[in-house]
Amino acid sequence: MSDKTNDQNPELKAGQFRALTEAEIASLPGQPGNPGRRGFMKMGALAGLAGVGGTLLTGCGRGATGDQPVAGKAPAAAATSMPEGHPTEVAPGHLDEYYGFWSGGQSGELRILGLPSMRELIRVPIFNPSFAIGWGITNESKRVLGKDFPPGGDLHHPHMSQTNGRYDGRYLFVNDKTGTRVARVRCDVMRADKIIDIPNVADIHGMRVQREPRTGYVFANSEFRVPSPNDGRDLDDPKKYQTMFTAIDGDTMEVSWQVIVDGNLDNTDCDYEGKYVASTCYNSEEAVDLAGMMQNERDWAVVFNIKRIEAAVKAGKFKTIGKSKVPVVDGRHGSPLTMYIPIPKSPHGLNASPDGKYFVANGKLSPTCSVVAWSKVDDYFDGKLKDPRDAVIAEPQLGLGPLHTSFDGRGYAYTTLFIDSQMAKWNIQDAIDAYAGKKVNYLRQKLDVAYQPGHCHTSLGETRDADGKWLVSLNKFSKDRFLPVGPLHPDCDQLIDISGDQMVLVADTPVFSEPHDAVIVPRQLMAGKIKRIWDRKDPFFAETVAQAKKHGVVLEKDSKVIREGKKVFVYMTSSAPKYGLDSFKVKKGDEVTVVVTNVDDIEDLTHGFCLSNYGINMEISPQETSSVTFIADKPGVYWYYCTFFCHALHLEMRGRMLVEA
Amino acid sequence: MSDKTNDQNPELKAGQFRALTEAEIASLPGQPGNPGRRGFMKMGALAGLAGVGGTLLTGCGRGATGDQPVAGKAPAAAATSMPEGHPTEVAPGHLDEYYGFWSGGQSGELRILGLPSMRELIRVPIFNPSFAIGWGITNESKRVLGKDFPPGGDLHHPHMSQTNGRYDGRYLFVNDKTGTRVARVRCDVMRADKIIDIPNVADIHGMRVQREPRTGYVFANSEFRVPSPNDGRDLDDPKKYQTMFTAIDGDTMEVSWQVIVDGNLDNTDCDYEGKYVASTCYNSEEAVDLAGMMQNERDWAVVFNIKRIEAAVKAGKFKTIGKSKVPVVDGRHGSPLTMYIPIPKSPHGLNASPDGKYFVANGKLSPTCSVVAWSKVDDYFDGKLKDPRDAVIAEPQLGLGPLHTSFDGRGYAYTTLFIDSQMAKWNIQDAIDAYAGKKVNYLRQKLDVAYQPGHCHTSLGETRDADGKWLVSLNKFSKDRFLPVGPLHPDCDQLIDISGDQMVLVADTPVFSEPHDAVIVPRQLMAGKIKRIWDRKDPFFAETVAQAKKHGVVLEKDSKVIREGKKVFVYMTSSAPKYGLDSFKVKKGDEVTVVVTNVDDIEDLTHGFCLSNYGINMEISPQETSSVTFIADKPGVYWYYCTFFCHALHLEMRGRMLVEA
Repeated sequence: MSDKTNDQNPELKAGQFRALTEAEIASLPGQPGNPGRRGFMKMGALAGLAGVGGTLLTGCGRGATGDQPVAGKAPAAAATSMPEGHPTEVAPGHLDEYYGFWSGGQSGELRILGLPSMRELIRVPIFNPSFAIGWGITNESKRVLGKDFPPGGDLHHPHMSQTNGRYDGRYLFVNDKTGTRVARVRCDVMRADKIIDIPNVADIHGMRVQREPRTGYVFANSEFRVPSPNDGRDLDDPKKYQTMFTAIDGDTMEVSWQVIVDGNLDNTDCDYEGKYVASTCYNSEEAVDLAGMMQNERDWAVVFNIKRIEAAVKAGKFKTIGKSKVPVVDGRHGSPLTMYIPIPKSPHGLNASPDGKYFVANGKLSPTCSVVAWSKVDDYFDGKLKDPRDAVIAEPQLGLGPLHTSFDGRGYAYTTLFIDSQMAKWNIQDAIDAYAGKKVNYLRQKLDVAYQPGHCHTSLGETRDADGKWLVSLNKFSKDRFLPVGPLHPDCDQLIDISGDQMVLVADTPVFSEPHDAVIVPRQLMAGKIKRIWDRKDPFFAETVAQAKKHGVVLEKDSKVIREGKKVFVYMTSSAPKYGLDSFKVKKGDEVTVVVTNVDDIEDLTHGFCLSNYGINMEISPQETSSVTFIADKPGVYWYYCTFFCHALHLEMRGRMLVEA
Repeated sequence: MSDKTNDQNPELKAGQFRALTEAEIASLPGQPGNPGRRGFMKMGALAGLAGVGGTLLTGCGRGATGDQPVAGKAPAAAATSMPEGHPTEVAPGHLDEYYGFWSGGQSGELRILGLPSMRELIRVPIFNPSFAIGWGITNESKRVLGKDFPPGGDLHHPHMSQTNGRYDGRYLFVNDKTGTRVARVRCDVMRADKIIDIPNVADIHGMRVQREPRTGYVFANSEFRVPSPNDGRDLDDPKKYQTMFTAIDGDTMEVSWQVIVDGNLDNTDCDYEGKYVASTCYNSEEAVDLAGMMQNERDWAVVFNIKRIEAAVKAGKFKTIGKSKVPVVDGRHGSPLTMYIPIPKSPHGLNASPDGKYFVANGKLSPTCSVVAWSKVDDYFDGKLKDPRDAVIAEPQLGLGPLHTSFDGRGYAYTTLFIDSQMAKWNIQDAIDAYAGKKVNYLRQKLDVAYQPGHCHTSLGETRDADGKWLVSLNKFSKDRFLPVGPLHPDCDQLIDISGDQMVLVADTPVFSEPHDAVIVPRQLMAGKIKRIWDRKDPFFAETVAQAKKHGVVLEKDSKVIREGKKVFVYMTSSAPKYGLDSFKVKKGDEVTVVVTNVDDIEDLTHGFCLSNYGINMEISPQETSSVTFIADKPGVYWYYCTFFCHALHLEMRGRMLVEA
């Protein structure tokens, strides 16, 4: 245990920050008798702890200055907002400089934005069915989604595959918290190609990718403890519940191994050497109610030793659970595979710095971040460090509700303060020096954000290439920042210019629920990697191509109907403004498979196939083949028509399915 | 038949414009042997007819000038793009000036934008299930969607209810083309409250609302002709197919009457007196293949005489079809209820001018728009006008592929030219004078848009309050305007400032498929009409409230479980950061109904209820009650958690469903 003095609050020793009491929890807005956020002025430190209240409302216009009840030594909270003429507007016809890959949260989708314009360029349905493009309707998408896929998912974290600590533009990986799933998105076509269920656990929350030597592993935290197996046993015995850390092979999308842990897992990140991955834990109490989850002054970050775990698995030191064949090793307290580092209090975000030296665990219910040196983790596993707590080399006090930290590659860190509704900029080395006893102020600036920020992310900030240009603050509340649209408000993503000494707020962007997390990638890095037209040999529809071949059908030319008993295969081309078939006839009760091949090879010339009153629509982009299978259960004439406006005669691009009674 | 000279092309009589030949159709891009759009230079008038090609690519940056192969007298096509410093960026914290209510096309949703920022403020799921808010999952939404609702819809036209020709902020009405449905959205909470199936017809395309004295009627065009009833009869006998025009009572959302027509119906609009509504027809041939649909040089606009139809229905001069009780009258050629006005060629958009005098039918395959005087329609029904064609009082020649026209209230019209990828500004009175033989140039400006525009809409342009501030061009192709995102490209909505003499392009906005149509409403008009918190007495969840009352449950206070045989009702409150129940227990096979009441009354403090691995998520906004019913078919421990980040302890806001085996 470190005994250094906490220079931000001399009365306390390092790590001994005052956290929320139960009385304070009871006083949070939303609890009976508490005022709402609107018109609710800062009432000092206690009110400052309020979950959804606490800072002076900036209202409409340039951000007003909120005071800082806890972190007292920061420069006056800068009311730095957009100066006139700040170059964030991207003129018509000009391209954005960065891609933003954005979580869609409980919408289940991935979103691709352009920065700095913050325009949504496209949506990529993943865990959510999408009638717009037929995701969840076409056979090709159902092969990815699996049988009996749920009606949606809760997509939290999008992260791009890396090679040598740098984005490599191959894949994006995303997780579904509620569905306990991880998906992979091909960056060349921006479509999910694999979605897998994670066995033995419930609720994947944190998810990150291996940086070195490459991705490699995709690491997934399961948050909620459940019985094992979760088949009805031990319902009333939470002590028997457990959870695990999961490593997935990003190339095969098979689960490599799992590690049983104490507590529950929250967020995760890994080092720049391929040795370790660490996760925060916020319910070390293993409680099943709110009060119980907040008892401990410190929870922990657990570090996983990848090489040792691989060796244990290789040596057969694992078990399997139920029908799953995944090797499960024991990483609970005392295991040589893991290291438990005490962190105050209910830590949330965990972020590795791009210099490869540290990770930062964000306190949530403590006003601090804890900086851990990977070198000290080496020391611990080498037996040179006895007390895991001594791996903490700084604990800057930043403000209320630190949730996530990002980096600019110039030695500065940016931490979201949920309760204070602020972004704190601080210097990592200064925080280390202060923790070591030097009189130095590590806080550089606090910027009001609107309101209650969760994740933040800097351009390239999770790679060696962190460029210190842009920071986004993904805020959970928008309140009065936009025109009212009913009881459900959008969230508010804010774009902040961090290229200078001071953070400058440049744009507010309303977002549909919920922009959980995001990564920012320069367009140069993606240049030449994204296809504008499908390759006819693409694996995404290869199974459909193989089926056609068996039928002797040349998809690029033939439009014909093949009947096999009650199964009818309808093959047709599409070429603006015509389908290969003006009509086809089936019998009521037939299982009909319609296969459409877009033989147009002009960029952006997508067709649709929408079958009226049959609940079917699918996108067929240039050179793509899409198919759908359904039962023709209603007799009559049903028109199919093109849903992607392709031509002056687009409205005339249609045909009839004739269903005989 | 008018015999006036066509002053734009003296060789032809008015109305006798050259339209696309079959050879030209065959030469369109997308047909074998034709070049793609990229790098494809203007090849003159014939190439100019190409559906997806034809204009000089403006590429990246300020719009280049395309020539005008047909309409020769326009001022040089202005390359007017955004000047530096044009005030379209809405600074952080500032509010937009206008609401944009945007069609989501085949996504099935309505979108609410802010203008001039063009930011998407929120999505309103209507025909599409949405896991984000539980639309299609909650009992409340299923009551709106009906039993066995399809997985999506193709939302085309959003229009706001009017009173005396002005937006009144009560409702938005939208249609689903593929599902043959019309929905109503309450503007106070921005939620759909009624979705109805339209009987006897297929595929609702055009849809508009009655302006005078109020809405009143919602008018819906069914596009595709089908057998009647469509039960398997007459499959191979297209001559027996038919379609109808439908009037819906916007207050009760019941169908008032239907009118059988010749041809098929496309777009529709009504007058400013409550007397007439008119629809375009593009397949007067009643063909079922592409070539057949383009035979006629003229199709028509059909005008419906509302009073006469109401009188016919009242007098019992109608039939009913199958199980439907809707009165159906015959409005085919020769009927006293309708007027068929010949219009060249395959007309598409139909738009009434805000001065109440005219409607404009847009030629699509003719380079003209046809201006019809409502007064001449009076004359026709009064027996004073023999030839319906004489109701056409102008036929300005604008360019290739005129699809839709909007108005600025100052006497100018703005017409999208799909093939030319341009917006044409023209003066209505000048066009009338030119048609009458005066030497006058009605064309004011052509502006390149990117690319292939469909609908356009001016601020307040479909009401008496047309203010001439903003125009949006909803373009179907984006091509190279944005960073590449794979084979599927976004569409491109462009914002144009029309407040001055010249149109000025100020913003490009990428959009997910497909922004079919939009209306623009100033924020002042909505002030005070939009609720920020639900009223506990709201009808949206009244049925659930009534069920709780039967169970003796006070929703705002009680958290309890009630069992009735195999039905289990789980009532709980939610108040950040706690649910009223930490856990509840059911048996495998139980039908479980979870009812959550958000007792927080702080604006924006929405909660979620997401049940892991059960495919359930729902939004519960402040003071709302939401419920969901499902079968507990899997034994084990399943956590429910809050999906709308509500509090610093949001992650701890969770509980367990214990399902006994």
